Amino acid sequence: MSELLASRLCDELTKLVLIDPHTHINPHSPASKTLADIMGYHYYTELAHSAGMPKSYIEEPGLDPRTKVGRLVESLSNLDNTIQVSWLVELCRKFFGFNDDRITPANWESLYDTSAAKMAEPDWEDQCLRQSGIERVFLTNDFDDPLEGFDTHKYIPCLRTDDLVFHLGKPEVRARLAKATGIDFVGGTTLRRAIGKLFEHFSAKGVRACAISLPPSFAPVAVTVNEADAALKLLLKGESLSPEDATTVSRFVFWTLTEYCVEYKLPFDLMIGVNRRVYPEGVFQGQDLFDQRVSLIQYQTLFNAFPQVKFPISVLAQISNQELVSYSWIFPNVYTNAHWWYSNIPAYIEIDTKARLQAVPRNKQVGYYSDMYKLEFAWPKFSMYRQCLSRVLAQDFVIARRWSEEQALSFGRQVLRGNVETIFGV
Amino acid sequence: MSELLASRLCDELTKLVLIDPHTHINPHSPASKTLADIMGYHYYTELAHSAGMPKSYIEEPGLDPRTKVGRLVESLSNLDNTIQVSWLVELCRKFFGFNDDRITPANWESLYDTSAAKMAEPDWEDQCLRQSGIERVFLTNDFDDPLEGFDTHKYIPCLRTDDLVFHLGKPEVRARLAKATGIDFVGGTTLRRAIGKLFEHFSAKGVRACAISLPPSFAPVAVTVNEADAALKLLLKGESLSPEDATTVSRFVFWTLTEYCVEYKLPFDLMIGVNRRVYPEGVFQGQDLFDQRVSLIQYQTLFNAFPQVKFPISVLAQISNQELVSYSWIFPNVYTNAHWWYSNIPAYIEIDTKARLQAVPRNKQVGYYSDMYKLEFAWPKFSMYRQCLSRVLAQDFVIARRWSEEQALSFGRQVLRGNVETIFGV
Amino acid sequence: MSELLASRLCDELTKLVLIDPHTHINPHSPASKTLADIMGYHYYTELAHSAGMPKSYIEEPGLDPRTKVGRLVESLSNLDNTIQVSWLVELCRKFFGFNDDRITPANWESLYDTSAAKMAEPDWEDQCLRQSGIERVFLTNDFDDPLEGFDTHKYIPCLRTDDLVFHLGKPEVRARLAKATGIDFVGGTTLRRAIGKLFEHFSAKGVRACAISLPPSFAPVAVTVNEADAALKLLLKGESLSPEDATTVSRFVFWTLTEYCVEYKLPFDLMIGVNRRVYPEGVFQGQDLFDQRVSLIQYQTLFNAFPQVKFPISVLAQISNQELVSYSWIFPNVYTNAHWWYSNIPAYIEIDTKARLQAVPRNKQVGYYSDMYKLEFAWPKFSMYRQCLSRVLAQDFVIARRWSEEQALSFGRQVLRGNVETIFGV
Repeated sequence: MSELLASRLCDELTKLVLIDPHTHINPHSPASKTLADIMGYHYYTELAHSAGMPKSYIEEPGLDPRTKVGRLVESLSNLDNTIQVSWLVELCRKFFGFNDDRITPANWESLYDTSAAKMAEPDWEDQCLRQSGIERVFLTNDFDDPLEGFDTHKYIPCLRTDDLVFHLGKPEVRARLAKATGIDFVGGTTLRRAIGKLFEHFSAKGVRACAISLPPSFAPVAVTVNEADAALKLLLKGESLSPEDATTVSRFVFWTLTEYCVEYKLPFDLMIGVNRRVYPEGVFQGQDLFDQRVSLIQYQTLFNAFPQVKFPISVLAQISNQELVSYSWIFPNVYTNAHWWYSNIPAYIEIDTKARLQAVPRNKQVGYYSDMYKLEFAWPKFSMYRQCLSRVLAQDFVIARRWSEEQALSFGRQVLRGNVETIFGV
Repeated sequence: MSELLASRLCDELTKLVLIDPHTHINPHSPASKTLADIMGYHYYTELAHSAGMPKSYIEEPGLDPRTKVGRLVESLSNLDNTIQVSWLVELCRKFFGFNDDRITPANWESLYDTSAAKMAEPDWEDQCLRQSGIERVFLTNDFDDPLEGFDTHKYIPCLRTDDLVFHLGKPEVRARLAKATGIDFVGGTTLRRAIGKLFEHFSAKGVRACAISLPPSFAPVAVTVNEADAALKLLLKGESLSPEDATTVSRFVFWTLTEYCVEYKLPFDLMIGVNRRVYPEGVFQGQDLFDQRVSLIQYQTLFNAFPQVKFPISVLAQISNQELVSYSWIFPNVYTNAHWWYSNIPAYIEIDTKARLQAVPRNKQVGYYSDMYKLEFAWPKFSMYRQCLSRVLAQDFVIARRWSEEQALSFGRQVLRGNVETIFGV
Repeated sequence: MSELLASRLCDELTKLVLIDPHTHINPHSPASKTLADIMGYHYYTELAHSAGMPKSYIEEPGLDPRTKVGRLVESLSNLDNTIQVSWLVELCRKFFGFNDDRITPANWESLYDTSAAKMAEPDWEDQCLRQSGIERVFLTNDFDDPLEGFDTHKYIPCLRTDDLVFHLGKPEVRARLAKATGIDFVGGTTLRRAIGKLFEHFSAKGVRACAISLPPSFAPVAVTVNEADAALKLLLKGESLSPEDATTVSRFVFWTLTEYCVEYKLPFDLMIGVNRRVYPEGVFQGQDLFDQRVSLIQYQTLFNAFPQVKFPISVLAQISNQELVSYSWIFPNVYTNAHWWYSNIPAYIEIDTKARLQAVPRNKQVGYYSDMYKLEFAWPKFSMYRQCLSRVLAQDFVIARRWSEEQALSFGRQVLRGNVETIFGV
């Protein structure tokens, strides 16, 4: 009974056209051109590597797209259980007329050709969006992105700030900042002014969020300009900073960004808990992991200091979900934001969704974002989420709490789309 | 199949009259008088605030009950998904003839009047208890509660000790202690004697448990009187204590309380993991959260030192449940105690219950307490628990392990009531 | 529907004959002789103790087997809910013609006699293995085990190294090492040589894995011989080591073991997260617990330094499973290994299995080991796992992802047996 009900709810929810509130789409090349663009997604290269394929075989310089796909297909027999490979198969069935349930050495070449032909159609980008039920897409823009040459109504700018907070010690980052703002900062005051220029620029282009990913150790607090000045002086001299000084710089920049979020009325997406380059010999983008020993109590000062700023929060460790639920239930400015990366599998989405739907105000939950690099992935990823969401709505609301199906669908639509509109103001 | 079975088990378990082993009932005013008493429960004010209602609007001084309810009802459209609001609707349907499935600006006023009339009936307290299937209720008494003027058979005293362990630095706490005991303590020895007076008084009134809530950082160990004396001397001088000295005082008092639990044969309820005032601008009782980085290993010394004391333990973080299960499975004096606060939602109750029923001796599990401030909440909260419990009994015992329904019910009755009797000696 | 499907899958999977990749079987006495051998398993003694039976009653010296069983049976009415007692009942029904669903004071004596007669049959060991569907069994051998007098094809040696890494400070451990290797080590270089001798010996006997259990605090890194020498000098003088020096020794030995795993091409089973003797007054083997605040990030250096070594990893805390899943998905040399001890109950097996099947390459998952001390336990423990596995295959693959039953079974067979063969090279 609950399976049929969930399936019925899912069919209805699939009719809703969505705004995807976090992606890594390149608006100048949003869709794929060949299966190599699709299978080059780090999930496939890192899983192929994990299953035993040498990095040098996967990432051999100069590989043509077809050869690369052929190589990755060799590993799929070890990976067909993964939800990530199910995304791949689902999108090929949806978009490219693929009829098998596995991609194999025997059938991939015709799929390669069929899909390449489809992706070569001049309106492929629009076809893909339309078939996927997506009408607008948030981007992840470098702080010095000119934001020119694309439709910022369809592809919504989002100011990504990891480089500013964690990599200001790199001369190339400072050079990019100087070039983007015309300000060569010499201390906290000028750095703050430079950052203000970025907000001004992004704001003029319709930015809808500031965003950052954060390591488990980070704990934001206010830093005075004087404290920042001392650390920035060393940084500008090119000295390698002590951990304390590096933290001072990170905190100063982070706090400054949040202050500008007040001024520009921007939500600040916090993606909490990633350790970068844990496996430096991993494939491109397949090197990061996490330490689950992190707590939102580290953000207590921030949440108290900025009641005006909305913080949509993603957590990497599944065990952080209960803290996220509880902090969202208490703090008016904390919002639950989707299911991120290592927590983005049905087993975790489903238990996290259950807790959120049961305990967080319904207007404070962003159900899902795709985090995609290419448009083709919105369909299978949102489908996965819709299935989890529908099962929870069926079991915990229609069956356990006797909601009508329409009440459940209305709640589903709100977390899928309505809250994206109200929280990000789109 | 499993849904019908669970429902059948739940119906049977609902017939059992219960003892509620932890509440915040005021025995001089146990039931509500208006819907404002009911909706004044911190769950509704904090969720309304979290969903966007200003604290000043919710907690405006001098608000009459009807206006307060009208204001809170405005927020319910953002909160109807929460299990807490389902408690509210369920109790209104159970007790007040409410027939809708939502409380809205359009229907709340008649509910307000109907419920006020019902609550004005002279025997409302008894009606409510009888309809709820509750016959005795544990209290949470301040250490200086005279415990006079109520039926201590029905409302069972429980000595709450947070003030003694964590707030002895406040002059008003010391004044209350002196007044309650006739002892103005000057050091560890006299403090111990004063605490003894409290146990003597509570014991004469039929106390059935000592209880305390503890922050994630707390780790009890024995402290000598000499060590305590040094810290207490500073405290009595009115100096603000260093963290180390404050810890010494807390540990000394905590250890002393446990020693008296031996002497008076009292279980010591430990509620582990709350950080107070994380959000100081939150509404009344809506300011506390937690840091999930806590371990029962912090209580290793305590559990070893007091084999004679029963420790019914509640954990705030859901991730602590496996430790609780494992420590209860190994330590004879560790007991699992219900589902506390941020873990008291079906999503977590169900997975925690599964693990407990599968791995902890059946005589060591207290299934549930309501934690209620007003009697009307026992019904919906225990109902929620019974539904979770019944699903687990159905799936994991009747279906998976082929228990008879009667065997499952017998187990259910034991965790619902039998163990409350044997563990607390009521 | 999903229950019938799961049951059908389970029946098919039960036909597969297995290799058990981790046990504590004594190959000189692999099967039980009486019910006392079976009920002497620490699960029953520790649970009986936890439920209220004094240790002195359970472990009274000189107890004859029948009396011991009679005593333990007294506690079963408090324990029949536990999955561990269900193993006991299941094995009695499977092997000894037991027809009841509970072992009670009224029926245990005839069971005792029937089972003793069965276990006295000369081919009981083979009968038990055959009925259990097990053909080969990994052992846990002390480093100085002569590995003589048994069939190392059936009972596969595995070098257990806890004593070397954590107890080299004990003179008796050093004496055993000297006796086993002929080398009385005087520093890092000679210690390394002695350890090499152990690998040489074990390798000649067909060892298939090196193994160790590790406390939550352990974090392996390389230690130079010079650093090791300083700490070893103190150790050899019989001085009690500082925590830092003890850590240096542990790390040196651990790193050395891993280097030999490269040389001898052995997987290194890491069982992460146990604190020993948390409850020193507990029954034999019923004293260990854990601190869940541990992260696989502590093993980052190791995983990077030894890409050639396979690390099948077991985690004690259930919350560590997501890290295990994620590290296995990224690191080619990290493998998921079964469900260990406090996580070895259906509630946790099922959610952990869901995440693993959904996100870890299928060739990197060892589904289960029994961890048994006596052969009779393979049947009920693997049965429990097969039921969990079948439910996950039914729900998450056949139903949710429309796999054929044969595809699901093929995946099930791979995690149950195929990967044991490929990962351990048996």
